Amino acid sequence: MTEAMSPDELERALRRIGEERYHNRHPFHRMLHGGEMSFGQVQAWALNRYVYQAAIPRKDAALMARLDDRDMRREWIGRIHDHDGIGADSGGIERWLKLTDGLKLNRAYVISQAGALPAVRFAVEAYVRFVYERPTLEAIASSLTELFAPAIHAERISGMLEHYSFIDDGLVAYFRKRLDQAPRDCRFALGYVRENARTAEQQQAALAALRFKTDVLWAQLDALYFAYVEPGFAPPGAFRPERS
Amino acid sequence: MTEAMSPDELERALRRIGEERYHNRHPFHRMLHGGEMSFGQVQAWALNRYVYQAAIPRKDAALMARLDDRDMRREWIGRIHDHDGIGADSGGIERWLKLTDGLKLNRAYVISQAGALPAVRFAVEAYVRFVYERPTLEAIASSLTELFAPAIHAERISGMLEHYSFIDDGLVAYFRKRLDQAPRDCRFALGYVRENARTAEQQQAALAALRFKTDVLWAQLDALYFAYVEPGFAPPGAFRPERS
Repeated sequence: MTEAMSPDELERALRRIGEERYHNRHPFHRMLHGGEMSFGQVQAWALNRYVYQAAIPRKDAALMARLDDRDMRREWIGRIHDHDGIGADSGGIERWLKLTDGLKLNRAYVISQAGALPAVRFAVEAYVRFVYERPTLEAIASSLTELFAPAIHAERISGMLEHYSFIDDGLVAYFRKRLDQAPRDCRFALGYVRENARTAEQQQAALAALRFKTDVLWAQLDALYFAYVEPGFAPPGAFRPERS
Repeated sequence: MTEAMSPDELERALRRIGEERYHNRHPFHRMLHGGEMSFGQVQAWALNRYVYQAAIPRKDAALMARLDDRDMRREWIGRIHDHDGIGADSGGIERWLKLTDGLKLNRAYVISQAGALPAVRFAVEAYVRFVYERPTLEAIASSLTELFAPAIHAERISGMLEHYSFIDDGLVAYFRKRLDQAPRDCRFALGYVRENARTAEQQQAALAALRFKTDVLWAQLDALYFAYVEPGFAPPGAFRPERS
């Protein structure tokens, strides 16, 4: 039987998962950020990533639906506002649609998800179901990819602005905003996991949840690479970039 | 086969359910509002009704977890804030706890729900599960008891202030606040049901959902009456008023 780790050891183990499995290591992202993609490939990425963005508030509501603790709900609900907006703030999903607008994608087509890759939709839905069904500790641990997000967002902003003439500052507003939001959110989630994953079994479950989430993100890029880079087999019904 | 009603006919049919089945007609409420209850009976009511209050944000989050429409989520999330509070507003659950405080109930005991009637907990959980599992239209229709709530709240405020020396204005803050909130919420929900329950089958499902919800409310009062009025058989482990 494994012995339980200290909270610091657990945090190190969680961060190691990011180093080994976070999707910044995926060849698709290296090409995207390095300026190696065509306009159509960037379109395909933004269109598919919308599926994930659009599902996040449902995922967070699913988690809230079983939080008995009012203070935790009051904390977690901020994530829904971040994505859906509140009052004058139109939210992260709207900022993502600004990006797809800028990439000349029809907004209704993006929102319909009709051209998104099935494998991307399946991965996203697996994430929502995971949060619905697993214990709160695992559901929260699965959000901890946010620990690794600021680095990828910073790299994406500078890389995309530098390399693509069709990307300007307005289009990367989503990522700029997440530079502030993600660290705040993951501080709370990391604190919760450090405090509540005490037994070896709970700690292994939390680590497995985070690994699962890195799989969810990675699988989306595998599908994008397969369909739009190599071998380039976009499945029937999926978005096809116009020849340019 | 039944023919579909017009939206106005549907609304009348929904309102008729309130006239026939809403829990303002229950003998327990008539005693409560008419000043016929002992301090201990009012305590038992407030303690048990807390179970319902505490579950409402989970119910609303469960509904949001499957709303694909961002505008609808932005609308619905206000209900969670009403109950959980946001920023300086400590919310409806906290206002309910002010009432149980005023009734000299230990706050930790109330929040633990340890003394609540099992039948009340089962009814409340049936409501949360209903919203989890049923189509969005039915989940929303089940919220329409709010159409009937302002009348009961107004009656409760005046009745309880008049009849009970231990109830003062601070303790009925929850009900005063709901006088504004409930009509705003149910305007949206009623509009949704009017617009989306178009076929006879959908309309019957919406009516059944509202009937189900009146059952959920009524069953709680049956349990309270049985345990604390007549025959007065509070089950093992349930709250027992101190003899006074």
